[in-house]
Amino acid sequence: MLQLIKKDRNTKARAGKLRTAHGEIDSPFFMPVGTNATVKTLSFEDLLEFDTQIVLSNTYHLFLRPGLDVIGEAGGLHEFMSWNGPILTDSGGYQVFSLAKLRKLTDGGVQFQSHYDGSLQFFTPEKVVDIQNVLGSDIMMPLDECAPYPCSREQAEESVKRTALWAKQSREYFLKTQKKKERQYQFGIVQGATFKDLRERSAQQILEVGFDGYAIGGVSVGEPVPIMFETLDWVLPFLPEDQPRYLMGIGLPDQIVKAVGEGVDMFDTCIPTRYGRHGSAFTRKGRIVVRNAAYIKDFGPIDEACDCRVCKKYTRSYIRHLLNSGEILGLALITYHNVYFYVNLMRQIRDAIANDRYWEFQKEFLEMFRSELEPSTV
Amino acid sequence: MLQLIKKDRNTKARAGKLRTAHGEIDSPFFMPVGTNATVKTLSFEDLLEFDTQIVLSNTYHLFLRPGLDVIGEAGGLHEFMSWNGPILTDSGGYQVFSLAKLRKLTDGGVQFQSHYDGSLQFFTPEKVVDIQNVLGSDIMMPLDECAPYPCSREQAEESVKRTALWAKQSREYFLKTQKKKERQYQFGIVQGATFKDLRERSAQQILEVGFDGYAIGGVSVGEPVPIMFETLDWVLPFLPEDQPRYLMGIGLPDQIVKAVGEGVDMFDTCIPTRYGRHGSAFTRKGRIVVRNAAYIKDFGPIDEACDCRVCKKYTRSYIRHLLNSGEILGLALITYHNVYFYVNLMRQIRDAIANDRYWEFQKEFLEMFRSELEPSTV
Repeated sequence: MLQLIKKDRNTKARAGKLRTAHGEIDSPFFMPVGTNATVKTLSFEDLLEFDTQIVLSNTYHLFLRPGLDVIGEAGGLHEFMSWNGPILTDSGGYQVFSLAKLRKLTDGGVQFQSHYDGSLQFFTPEKVVDIQNVLGSDIMMPLDECAPYPCSREQAEESVKRTALWAKQSREYFLKTQKKKERQYQFGIVQGATFKDLRERSAQQILEVGFDGYAIGGVSVGEPVPIMFETLDWVLPFLPEDQPRYLMGIGLPDQIVKAVGEGVDMFDTCIPTRYGRHGSAFTRKGRIVVRNAAYIKDFGPIDEACDCRVCKKYTRSYIRHLLNSGEILGLALITYHNVYFYVNLMRQIRDAIANDRYWEFQKEFLEMFRSELEPSTV
Repeated sequence: MLQLIKKDRNTKARAGKLRTAHGEIDSPFFMPVGTNATVKTLSFEDLLEFDTQIVLSNTYHLFLRPGLDVIGEAGGLHEFMSWNGPILTDSGGYQVFSLAKLRKLTDGGVQFQSHYDGSLQFFTPEKVVDIQNVLGSDIMMPLDECAPYPCSREQAEESVKRTALWAKQSREYFLKTQKKKERQYQFGIVQGATFKDLRERSAQQILEVGFDGYAIGGVSVGEPVPIMFETLDWVLPFLPEDQPRYLMGIGLPDQIVKAVGEGVDMFDTCIPTRYGRHGSAFTRKGRIVVRNAAYIKDFGPIDEACDCRVCKKYTRSYIRHLLNSGEILGLALITYHNVYFYVNLMRQIRDAIANDRYWEFQKEFLEMFRSELEPSTV
């Protein structure tokens, strides 16, 4: 699946190519989050304008709304949302734990109530594979149990055990149900919360099952950023060189830059879209809150160093006015810029790796980009 | 200002060209409404994709927010919102009557409270010209008094009188303050509510002042559609052939098609954008409510006869899902289609006039397009 093209000389950063049924992806890469089959406020034409390579969508949400009968009849998720590029779908497990009501968790699966209409649903490892087969995801994730932060050792141990059990069932069922015609991939997810030995145990168990790529889950669930990077340090040595590594739900631009330096290939986060809808924009020098009064008569672009469509045309003053007037275009313009910022950051990252200067790039970026509080504060 | 190119053989429809400082406009034409310096949910790139010729913006709103100091410092409204095409701004009078609080009306002007912050404001005929000078509108409108529907004869008579007084003051001040460099136009507005003789009196008075074009105001304020067309019949004979005729705030597609047949050149209405935000889309066969359950698995475009970007790519099923999920993209896609529908309708209208077949076009269109209730019902 992953063809490694270049390893940086001074860091663990690596560049490669992933082949999927819907096209090749240059790694490292970022996946904008399209929860409801749309990257919030953006059209797919927007995403193609700056060569977004892949989008992520949420199994839990799509399963509940519009439902599999609609997406199935449309011919799968690509057809349904008119996106012909690669799609990764998550397992829905995380959403069951964070959104659904009245969960009942057993080794057999998880029963939950839809947060939309209260209807009773049941996810098993097999069912989650079935759902993603209907969606036609290029990369699918198996049902796992994501422990919260903080959590007890017992809780973490239980989630590691169940995640391993479900991983095995998921993989077997995936291999059995795969149609040769359109190749899909399935990744394993490493859990273990903030316990070193549990992370190592989980990594070994998931590796033993054997997947097309490996994800580090149960991060960005509220833990301090240094702990997240520590977790990364524990798990990465277990992951094979020649398979993609995915750090789930991460993160702010500086966190991504650091994680690439540790050898991560894949990222997803709703930060650029969510921050955009709150009037925050990313610039080379850090985040700015465009709504602030300081920008009333600022007729410069969001980011002078940016060459996106929005920065070429619209001013901070105008966008601020739109936000203050409750105009949707304001949210759409900032979101466009933010997602471009992330996609373009990954392009710069790949260039730096290709030229054996990732160490310098990382240093320059982190010096310029003001570090921030936890994402959860916005 | 208006160069008449073609008069239809069988109707009073006419096609022409308007020259403005920001480009030529083929008439008859439609002006999408950009109240807060944005056509709701659309970018100016969107509008340029289908050759929107001109946009309308609201003096009342822009004066209050972001305010003239911001737009003035930006270099005018074109610069502020990054739209280099023609702009028409209304006088703000209608909004003072429909939105503002605690109005106090005298011959000197109108005092009102901002509906945003309650601040006390005063519009005079001269001030409204000043504001639109700062905005840099290609076509500006003079302060007028728009009588409500229904209204007494006394009320209507008073508004005709005041509108005439203000028209004279506005025109004099406009001519005095015009800079030669960048040509702006100013239109007169005919009032008179639903009284034939008052409409005729108002038309004569406004014509006597002499403007660059003439608008019929005080329509689409709640009166039945047949009365609106009657009003049109009363006023149009007074308007000179060689100057543009603008029917303010009209209307549904079938109303526009009919009014063009009577000799109207210019239209504006928030119907395509407002209906779009409510999930209603225009098609050649009438309006459809995309949110309806009938479209859950309808994988066809909004309008099969439409060649807009949205209809080429997205399905009713997908757009319905977006609306149901509260996704902004759903509103933006329908609005894009609706505004395209209007702009493209005007293109078809001009083609029909050019080919001396407006009578046939009108007949075909009105037979195909299901007629509707008043716009105010949505």
